[in-house]
Amino acid sequence: LVEEQLARVERMKNDTGAVDYSKLDQIIIGCCGGDGIGPAITAEAERVLRAVLKDDVASGKIIFKQIDGLTIENRIAANKAIPDDVLAELKACDIILKGPTTTPSKGDGPNIESANVAMRRELDLFANVRPVAVPEEGIDWTFFRENTEGEYALGSKGIALDADMSFDFKVTTTQGTERIARQAFEFARKNGKKRVAIITKANILKKTDGKFLELCYKVAKEYPEIEVDDWFVDIISANLINEKVRKNFEVFVLPNLYGDIITDEAAQIQGGVGTAGSANVGNKYAMFEAIHGSAPRMVETGREQYANPASMIKAAELLLRHIGYKDEADRVIAALKIANDTIKMTGRNDGATGAEFANCVIENL
Amino acid sequence: LVEEQLARVERMKNDTGAVDYSKLDQIIIGCCGGDGIGPAITAEAERVLRAVLKDDVASGKIIFKQIDGLTIENRIAANKAIPDDVLAELKACDIILKGPTTTPSKGDGPNIESANVAMRRELDLFANVRPVAVPEEGIDWTFFRENTEGEYALGSKGIALDADMSFDFKVTTTQGTERIARQAFEFARKNGKKRVAIITKANILKKTDGKFLELCYKVAKEYPEIEVDDWFVDIISANLINEKVRKNFEVFVLPNLYGDIITDEAAQIQGGVGTAGSANVGNKYAMFEAIHGSAPRMVETGREQYANPASMIKAAELLLRHIGYKDEADRVIAALKIANDTIKMTGRNDGATGAEFANCVIENL
Ligand SMILES: CC(C)[C@H](C(=O)O)[C@@H](O)C(=O)O
Ligand SMILES: CC(C)[C@H](C(=O)O)[C@@H](O)C(=O)O
Repeated sequence: LVEEQLARVERMKNDTGAVDYSKLDQIIIGCCGGDGIGPAITAEAERVLRAVLKDDVASGKIIFKQIDGLTIENRIAANKAIPDDVLAELKACDIILKGPTTTPSKGDGPNIESANVAMRRELDLFANVRPVAVPEEGIDWTFFRENTEGEYALGSKGIALDADMSFDFKVTTTQGTERIARQAFEFARKNGKKRVAIITKANILKKTDGKFLELCYKVAKEYPEIEVDDWFVDIISANLINEKVRKNFEVFVLPNLYGDIITDEAAQIQGGVGTAGSANVGNKYAMFEAIHGSAPRMVETGREQYANPASMIKAAELLLRHIGYKDEADRVIAALKIANDTIKMTGRNDGATGAEFANCVIENL
Repeated sequence: LVEEQLARVERMKNDTGAVDYSKLDQIIIGCCGGDGIGPAITAEAERVLRAVLKDDVASGKIIFKQIDGLTIENRIAANKAIPDDVLAELKACDIILKGPTTTPSKGDGPNIESANVAMRRELDLFANVRPVAVPEEGIDWTFFRENTEGEYALGSKGIALDADMSFDFKVTTTQGTERIARQAFEFARKNGKKRVAIITKANILKKTDGKFLELCYKVAKEYPEIEVDDWFVDIISANLINEKVRKNFEVFVLPNLYGDIITDEAAQIQGGVGTAGSANVGNKYAMFEAIHGSAPRMVETGREQYANPASMIKAAELLLRHIGYKDEADRVIAALKIANDTIKMTGRNDGATGAEFANCVIENL
């Protein structure tokens, strides 16, 4: 089965560059729960997708596929960030909804790379697109985080030279930078945005961020109608919370690690990392996820049914938009707003469960 | 003269490890204006220092020394981040007050390293201490930013492998990490702080940040009365603006670049990067500065007299505290608060000038 699907997917994708979902007669949505609260909140988001897509699910146009194997236990057993069979299953889907995964990071744990980072690399999901909006404050930002290189390029393979000195590497390539810059400017053009801000620390990391800055400006020349300027990442972390200037920003393009830091801050402005979804997009595959972690402590204390699925439902909304279901995406957003305003989630048994939250979204679709 | 002072300074500093300012019969404060608005705001901060220290200035215990040569023009001419004569002058002071300097960062400009970064390295100012307080919100944070290594270690010397690929390096050493960790924990102990938070991205940069995390925990064992925990830098950028959790943080210890980013964000919470001063401290030297840039556009448009000297006065306050003038430091802080509440600075001629602002501080000392 996996091989059959793989062949099918390869047939459709090989020569197109980017997938045109409207040309697919069938769309396979892979639901990959991950670790911790991941399976619980991913299941709730899947229920929302099934509800809003119910006619196309009934007709067989939309197919859901469960991918359960991306757990920390399996990854430790396989000694791989993504076990081979799981990677094959992921590649057999047209689009992926993924729950958070756990990465051992302490010196005493197994030394396994982040599954997120590995997936972004293996599926070449080079653009991490993170929208943040606070309409009442005039904030409508879209971040284009480069998603496969920079500080993340070597899959955590630095060098411990000796007991005294360790190195890690930041890598910036021409192709890697130009393609994320082009995504940002294309998005700006197609969505009537007036401005793109390039974020670097090119005064310090002159070779990598200097290259990133230069190439973004080069790509910008193809989009003369769009204003472009550049900022250092430190002052941007201040400007995002500076009410006098932050409304002026629209689209950001930034290297991997700065995107990681700055989008968490931005998500907090919107209400918390639990409110933000993230699109990981490449030319062949696309994966949608929450931007927060797997909250293992909630599971240890038996509270996973109280985990808030809002971020995964937000990810599902981005997924719908990506495969061309714009109205459905708008309906999910509207219903999500109602649920956020109505349902009180505390993460404990004095609040609602994730299922109750998702039910409220579904009732209001 | 320079040589005489150099000899004097070497005599006093060589065997002490850290300078004990109370043992000096004379303290030479170097005032180094820098670029852009730097000279203007540094001069105002010097006036405040002279006023609050007037008896010791009259008695000759405190001496001010002007160091004018750290300009972008001189640095380009010398093709050095700090021209040799300026470095010698800096080393002949006991303590330094420094205005912002300009770093050319665009590909088309001269390729000169940041003067800040070079000074931190040349004077081995390994601890960048940045306090941020918002008393009415219960915020009282002190950041211990490692100041000589990490992404800044190699003085912007990365590698452009070929036209396609560039590398920069992050370097973490045992000694470099242990000494900043020790500063943070010592500060916590001496100031009755209960908690230290270690900030890294050790799930990705396993060799460098992993080492940093491990060594901070090792140093923490010497301070069993202090609680310690660790956070990833992305979630910290969210937590700093999360009103539910941010009050719980007290002392932070973090690698160079994260300190750069996170302290700008923290300064904005306090009122803007223009409100924050920064102490750069080593075992032999200490340098105090604003955390913002040199605002060349203000100078180009002839507005430097309207630049707000609050950040440099804040730096002067930190300097006073460092050399043991605690009461004077408290008086500056109190007067600065009055000036902030009374004087309206707009950066334009519809606001007050920097001199008017400093006068208000001086009148209220
Ligand atoms: C889990 C972690 C590896 C990941 C990252 O650093 O990219 C996460 O923080 C994110 O932003 O998606
Ligand atoms: C000017 C620049 C090199 C410097 C830095 O990056 O450290 C500044 O942003 C700071 O925080 O002091």
